[in-house]
Amino acid sequence: MIILFGIFIRYDQESDAHWIEYRKSQNISSDIENDFYFRYPSFQDVHVMIFVGFGFLMTFLKRYSFSAVGFNFLIAAFGLQWALLMQGWFQSLDPMDGKIKISMESLINADFCVASCLIAYGAVLGKLSPVQLMVMTLFGITLYAVEEFIILNLIHARDAGGSMVIHTFGAYYGLSISWMLYRPNLDQSKRLNGSVYHSDVFAMIGTLFLWMFWPSFNSAITDHGDGQHRAAINTYLALASTVLTTVAISSLSQKTGKLDMVHIQNSTLAGGVAVGTAAEFMLMPYGSLIIGFCCGIISTLGYIYITPFMEKYLKIQDTCGIHNLHAMPGVIGGIVGAITAAAASERVYGKEGLINTFDFTGEWKDMVPSRQGGHQAAGLCVALCFGVGGGIIVGCILRIPVWGDAPDDNCFDDELYWEGSIYIFFT
Amino acid sequence: MIILFGIFIRYDQESDAHWIEYRKSQNISSDIENDFYFRYPSFQDVHVMIFVGFGFLMTFLKRYSFSAVGFNFLIAAFGLQWALLMQGWFQSLDPMDGKIKISMESLINADFCVASCLIAYGAVLGKLSPVQLMVMTLFGITLYAVEEFIILNLIHARDAGGSMVIHTFGAYYGLSISWMLYRPNLDQSKRLNGSVYHSDVFAMIGTLFLWMFWPSFNSAITDHGDGQHRAAINTYLALASTVLTTVAISSLSQKTGKLDMVHIQNSTLAGGVAVGTAAEFMLMPYGSLIIGFCCGIISTLGYIYITPFMEKYLKIQDTCGIHNLHAMPGVIGGIVGAITAAAASERVYGKEGLINTFDFTGEWKDMVPSRQGGHQAAGLCVALCFGVGGGIIVGCILRIPVWGDAPDDNCFDDELYWEGSIYIFFT
Amino acid sequence: MIILFGIFIRYDQESDAHWIEYRKSQNISSDIENDFYFRYPSFQDVHVMIFVGFGFLMTFLKRYSFSAVGFNFLIAAFGLQWALLMQGWFQSLDPMDGKIKISMESLINADFCVASCLIAYGAVLGKLSPVQLMVMTLFGITLYAVEEFIILNLIHARDAGGSMVIHTFGAYYGLSISWMLYRPNLDQSKRLNGSVYHSDVFAMIGTLFLWMFWPSFNSAITDHGDGQHRAAINTYLALASTVLTTVAISSLSQKTGKLDMVHIQNSTLAGGVAVGTAAEFMLMPYGSLIIGFCCGIISTLGYIYITPFMEKYLKIQDTCGIHNLHAMPGVIGGIVGAITAAAASERVYGKEGLINTFDFTGEWKDMVPSRQGGHQAAGLCVALCFGVGGGIIVGCILRIPVWGDAPDDNCFDDELYWEGSIYIFFT
Repeated sequence: MIILFGIFIRYDQESDAHWIEYRKSQNISSDIENDFYFRYPSFQDVHVMIFVGFGFLMTFLKRYSFSAVGFNFLIAAFGLQWALLMQGWFQSLDPMDGKIKISMESLINADFCVASCLIAYGAVLGKLSPVQLMVMTLFGITLYAVEEFIILNLIHARDAGGSMVIHTFGAYYGLSISWMLYRPNLDQSKRLNGSVYHSDVFAMIGTLFLWMFWPSFNSAITDHGDGQHRAAINTYLALASTVLTTVAISSLSQKTGKLDMVHIQNSTLAGGVAVGTAAEFMLMPYGSLIIGFCCGIISTLGYIYITPFMEKYLKIQDTCGIHNLHAMPGVIGGIVGAITAAAASERVYGKEGLINTFDFTGEWKDMVPSRQGGHQAAGLCVALCFGVGGGIIVGCILRIPVWGDAPDDNCFDDELYWEGSIYIFFT
Repeated sequence: MIILFGIFIRYDQESDAHWIEYRKSQNISSDIENDFYFRYPSFQDVHVMIFVGFGFLMTFLKRYSFSAVGFNFLIAAFGLQWALLMQGWFQSLDPMDGKIKISMESLINADFCVASCLIAYGAVLGKLSPVQLMVMTLFGITLYAVEEFIILNLIHARDAGGSMVIHTFGAYYGLSISWMLYRPNLDQSKRLNGSVYHSDVFAMIGTLFLWMFWPSFNSAITDHGDGQHRAAINTYLALASTVLTTVAISSLSQKTGKLDMVHIQNSTLAGGVAVGTAAEFMLMPYGSLIIGFCCGIISTLGYIYITPFMEKYLKIQDTCGIHNLHAMPGVIGGIVGAITAAAASERVYGKEGLINTFDFTGEWKDMVPSRQGGHQAAGLCVALCFGVGGGIIVGCILRIPVWGDAPDDNCFDDELYWEGSIYIFFT
Repeated sequence: MIILFGIFIRYDQESDAHWIEYRKSQNISSDIENDFYFRYPSFQDVHVMIFVGFGFLMTFLKRYSFSAVGFNFLIAAFGLQWALLMQGWFQSLDPMDGKIKISMESLINADFCVASCLIAYGAVLGKLSPVQLMVMTLFGITLYAVEEFIILNLIHARDAGGSMVIHTFGAYYGLSISWMLYRPNLDQSKRLNGSVYHSDVFAMIGTLFLWMFWPSFNSAITDHGDGQHRAAINTYLALASTVLTTVAISSLSQKTGKLDMVHIQNSTLAGGVAVGTAAEFMLMPYGSLIIGFCCGIISTLGYIYITPFMEKYLKIQDTCGIHNLHAMPGVIGGIVGAITAAAASERVYGKEGLINTFDFTGEWKDMVPSRQGGHQAAGLCVALCFGVGGGIIVGCILRIPVWGDAPDDNCFDDELYWEGSIYIFFT
């Protein structure tokens, strides 16, 4: 890794000490226009989502908190280095000197890339060994970089918050792997596949940090100015609306009218996933609310009906229920993005605003919104194919019995991987 | 809600895709001058305070952590949507087309509005059902919007950090409701009205995030430039000083010299409340320290003497002690604000600085500091009246026995509202 | 404290109400160029590191969580006030009117100063009383201010992330105090000197917030523009690389191949310490990875071999293992800084970039990189001397038996300092 970085990776002009000269040559009046000041607060929020958000969200299992937060840490730290290389090769290789120039935006993209692998981790949580996770991450990042290149560069779909590129891909990648690694005797560890009071409170830390910083996630790499502003507002509204529907559906679905902590921890986030693609468009505040409203219903019902169904009939064991939190909302997000893009007009966006928002420049300068809608839909299909296809292939690789996976009756158990973890038994 | 948003709410020019054209027409040189970059980092900090800060601060009860953090989440997500509408109608309705134009500042204001309801939640924590909480929030937000409009627009008082508008109003609103809903037999749930070791550590997460991000809270909507800069510094100093006094008083008040975790969790924050109004003024660093010093004493003594007194003689059951953390410091903050405003002079502020800080423009261009002081005091009275009056009325509504409140011996108990919450009993 | 603040401390021009006039006189085109917008997001991240990061990192002890997070809070709140005064006297005293002018940068520096005392707290965690901690902090801050003045101003070493000034000094200060206060019978509290499952998860909150926000720590006070940008990237990479090495070494060092939570909580951070000095230089991305790689190895091996050795033979009891996390990586960071500075050239930095990065202006305008390298090395020596020397002196003071320290069999026990902390015993 060090060697590859040594060969390929350099600072870009905004982080290079030559910036002061570059700035003057470009007639930029102030240091504050360095991209750092546009992106850094969002970057840190995304960073918190990746490490604390995903990490703690998965601590809900009673005896798997160390692994949840620890392996999440490991996957993310490994993944982002690999992602800088892979994304660099595909997207920001400087044709002049063959170097990848990294900046704050590269780091955000690397975090995004890692997010897709952490989503996949959610499906296999408790069932794979660290070595298997590393393999899964290595291939996942690589597939992601290819898929992202195809969707964003070749097809020219827009996907600021990654409904398609991150969530749809990541979720189906994880689900396919879980399907390939189906464990018929998993109920031998049933005693450990559940939460206790405190572990659920820990998981709420993850939920809340994901929920709060999702506006930063969806706005982190959108256009400077109104793009970031609008993406943050749309995401904020969609998420707020999801919370209400989730609580309502969770309560209505029980005869006693009680709430289920699993729904509060997960389904409340579905709106942020679904608004990902369209967040930077002129979705209108009520549009965001509608998306959040629908996703709250679908996601909560998914936990109640679809997850048990998938486990029983489709042989897909989905520990965190990522199908409800990422897969379905991600697909919805892709569709909403396609519709919103197709419906874009100069009246709503303004002439320059339309060009700016959809980046109708360079070789795409003859693009029109209706065709853009088609490209968005094509992007969604690519993400689905890469997710399912990639997951099946990597699942095959992981079935090779050299990676040392956990026995069926020791899944969801920290003791397998952590020294001296003494616990009281909460069973 | 979706319909109301559809009818009324639109993006403002800084978040609209027409921004690029607007920017050129206004001769703004760079995207970085979009209000997003002035406000977004503060907004995210405030957001963390609302959801993690308030949410986790209230997890201290041994068996009410799910409800503390979960209902906090629900109230906040519902409240901020309603607040966008109510505040919009009163403050940012565009007379041209009858639409509310939202931007980052609207979202911060909505979060502020929600804060006042979460403060009120602190007084009734563990005693109201979710439906009652929603009713309380619905009316609370509405009252807040009216009160804020009167104080900030009609009276032209300044209240950047909301000592009056948020804390005084919210606290007396909650206390009045708690008074109206007095439960004489609450000691039947006495076994649950306390903390355990781990729940206190969870509560410290809330305390610390509130404490750290309070400078952002008080500076979030102050003037660009020096206003935000100064408000952050003043709040930081006031809070630092409160911590020391709280520890000292907490230790001195016990014969054994030991510390009480309740004081550390709550009273350490009082300085931030009290400095709210005056934070943007030229309070001087030592002024901030004095405020923090006094509030640390008053708040800690409040927990030791006033809360038991109120419960016994005034029949006000205040679960979180919001009287000590928000009500008293809020009133102090209002008074300090009035004094500081009245004492303002051109010598200290500069001619333009004075106009800028107190917004002596438009119809208020003949205002002088001494009269501004009077207006500040009037604002405080309005906040008190709305808090007490509104609380009594809403308390009456909540006494109607259709909302399904908890029986006296089941207060502070998650089991009433949450499915399958298995805990070990820590009694 | 209030009196001293009253006499000495004032706002600087960027936080003063005269800013609006100052801005015009300086021909600054926009409020966004107020230093607030360059520094505030980083400041808040540093603030989180100090209070949540350090605070929760030390909650790992099973019965000392209250004291860990509570005394951390107390030390930090006291320390930052004292630091504003001490650093002000040495660094920003205005010769015109004898006042200290504070701004956002002063607050960041105060937080940095506090960090060194919290590092020292890590070595004596569980063994000192709150009064002793206050004394330790009082002297620590004072020594820090002197040492910082010598290193940064007199010697003109650069140390943006404080590998030398903060980490090396803080760690050796704490270790020397721990050495002076050696307790031969500490194994009487052995039953309490360990973690339980949940306390380790709490500690991971601290680890992750430190890890995530370390790029902000190292970039908080570097140069506007490329300086901050580059420091953040370098730190991010070094930390990512450390995580991988730490996991690898931790697993390899056990016969069973299991991981040790202590290493994950601590050693993963070593890269951020070591890259502190050089982060703002043109270290190159692969340089950061190499530093992170080495430090991960050294720090993890330190926990396995050096800490037990130090306790047994050198009579230094280091509760949190700060020697592995701060002392060794800090020294490495100083050395790397010296080498990188000495190797700087106009080819890599550009003519203006070199002057800008190393601040070769004013009386230092004839400085060359090779000599700068020597100055960096001198700075490291000063930090070491102040740390060891200061620690021994303050250790002597703390041995005076008037401070009421804990008996040997009651160390690591919250019950000594906290009222009514009822816990279940996890032994």
